[in-house]
Amino acid sequence: MSQLPKQPAEVSVPTSADVARLAGVSRATVSYVLNNNATVRISDPTRRRVREAALQLGYVPHAAARSLRAGHSRMVLLPSGHIPGGPLHQYFFEELQSGLRRLDYTVVQYGSVGLTADEAATAWAELRPVAVVVPPGITLTPHGTGILTRSGAKAVITLGPDPVPGAHGLVMDQRRVGESAVEHLVARGRRHIGVVMPQEPCRESFSETRLAGARRAAESAGARVCPLPLGYDEESAQRLAARWAELGLDAVFAYNDEYAMLLMRALQDAGVTVPADTAVIGADDSLIGRLLRPRLSTVRMELSMPQPLAETIDRMVQHPGGPPVHHDLLRTSAVHRESS
Amino acid sequence: MSQLPKQPAEVSVPTSADVARLAGVSRATVSYVLNNNATVRISDPTRRRVREAALQLGYVPHAAARSLRAGHSRMVLLPSGHIPGGPLHQYFFEELQSGLRRLDYTVVQYGSVGLTADEAATAWAELRPVAVVVPPGITLTPHGTGILTRSGAKAVITLGPDPVPGAHGLVMDQRRVGESAVEHLVARGRRHIGVVMPQEPCRESFSETRLAGARRAAESAGARVCPLPLGYDEESAQRLAARWAELGLDAVFAYNDEYAMLLMRALQDAGVTVPADTAVIGADDSLIGRLLRPRLSTVRMELSMPQPLAETIDRMVQHPGGPPVHHDLLRTSAVHRESS
Repeated sequence: MSQLPKQPAEVSVPTSADVARLAGVSRATVSYVLNNNATVRISDPTRRRVREAALQLGYVPHAAARSLRAGHSRMVLLPSGHIPGGPLHQYFFEELQSGLRRLDYTVVQYGSVGLTADEAATAWAELRPVAVVVPPGITLTPHGTGILTRSGAKAVITLGPDPVPGAHGLVMDQRRVGESAVEHLVARGRRHIGVVMPQEPCRESFSETRLAGARRAAESAGARVCPLPLGYDEESAQRLAARWAELGLDAVFAYNDEYAMLLMRALQDAGVTVPADTAVIGADDSLIGRLLRPRLSTVRMELSMPQPLAETIDRMVQHPGGPPVHHDLLRTSAVHRESS
Repeated sequence: MSQLPKQPAEVSVPTSADVARLAGVSRATVSYVLNNNATVRISDPTRRRVREAALQLGYVPHAAARSLRAGHSRMVLLPSGHIPGGPLHQYFFEELQSGLRRLDYTVVQYGSVGLTADEAATAWAELRPVAVVVPPGITLTPHGTGILTRSGAKAVITLGPDPVPGAHGLVMDQRRVGESAVEHLVARGRRHIGVVMPQEPCRESFSETRLAGARRAAESAGARVCPLPLGYDEESAQRLAARWAELGLDAVFAYNDEYAMLLMRALQDAGVTVPADTAVIGADDSLIGRLLRPRLSTVRMELSMPQPLAETIDRMVQHPGGPPVHHDLLRTSAVHRESS
């Protein structure tokens, strides 16, 4: 079935002692060279000899052993949920990872689906990260923050909609998304506004927060908001469209562009004209919205940081005694196209 | 700016000795209880006392220290790239993570964007995983496999299109996607078939492999295949649609449903009738394809495993001497709707 070579049952793992022997130096010198310790003067030929010996033997330093010796780790943990956060989140986390790597941190993600908030915090703590960055959609409790700081985390940072006592809050306040959407619809003369509430698991924290923002904007404008539960499938959208007339809505904020595409198709198939009968706005400013007819209005999101997040985290790790930092990173703006 | 409590500069980290003292047992007993060691008989009241003491002190076992003592880790590393793999991949990796967690492994992901293949393998090796599962789109070389096995990984598994010497290959052969698409178009009477090649970074390994499958299917049917580079933006799609007549194509495999939506919009805006002038097929069987008009034909992908992957990995870890396992997990089938 395969001509691949057999994997050996036991592989002898090269140690730093093997590297030291081959390079003719002490184990301490091997450690200084391979861990890029700049405080010790070692000649370039020696450095080269150590690196060549390590390469030849296939020796790789052991991150955990190094951090046990040092008394602290260089690991930054990013818990991950199962919400596809969209291109903005993806870009944000890739930038964060390369930024931290340049500062010599090891960044690992930890899938936290199916764990309670405190089970997850305990699982993260077992890895002894020096910093934890909790993305929106994953719950961190004050108790969980305590578990992490007691296990040695010097910076616990939450990116959710609300600050958590004891943690730094670099907050992405999703309320603004609902607020921008409803402000736009109100400015276009609409007063009876549906708000799509996705029924997929783990979306609640986003959808409830966006709804709260939509309510806030509607109240101050004398408009009315009506939550509309919607599954991500054609049948749910058709059922919702079939009772559209009785809902008496003249506009809908569809949670994001994908749900807007789903609902707009069902409304159009049911004979509802967009935007004449009902204005539709999505969120994410994705390409699919621009491909729809009518072209989809949307809420654009941008992240604004006073400085790169990796540097902020590094400073928090270096100076863990400071007061919690609290910034709102999320900037939103409505983009008017043809559907509203 | 915030009334949150200050984070203490120095937190005293509770140790297993603190737990042992509070519970009135030995450190070994603490270790047996908290690491779920089933080989040692410990009474239920003692277990409860240890757990309560750990909870009260906020003590969390140290995964790395435990694995250093044990001589091997329980960490399974999943490198992650920046390709959104679609719902199939997401579901697959969530299932894998919970399956491995049930078997008492710690699963971490490691973002590998911006690293060369061997830099990435070295970074993974520093974490001393007992197994590494490399998803499609991330390159593993035989040299990288050697770095990992020498650093103690007992199972290195690649999910890419091709096996890697020394690694187990639970392969997802993306060639089948291109093959199914072209076989479908040929069966619908088409012979001049464009194949969309996304110009986003890091898509190459997928698109080249799908193209190879498309070519194979076209050759055996006497059809012709023409690669069509396409950026994920409206301008690129409009430029491609503007020279559609001179390409002389009667069908196109659009890489996936999102690119199909982009190209179909541009073709329709340019006066090309789908499917009369040009048949279009996507891949992923996503909801957006069903929402398009005409409804989009697509290639559906399913993963088929002889048994849950977590159990397969566990067996590989327990019995590392076996010959490399090589399965093709990917099953594909064309779904005919209105666009082809």
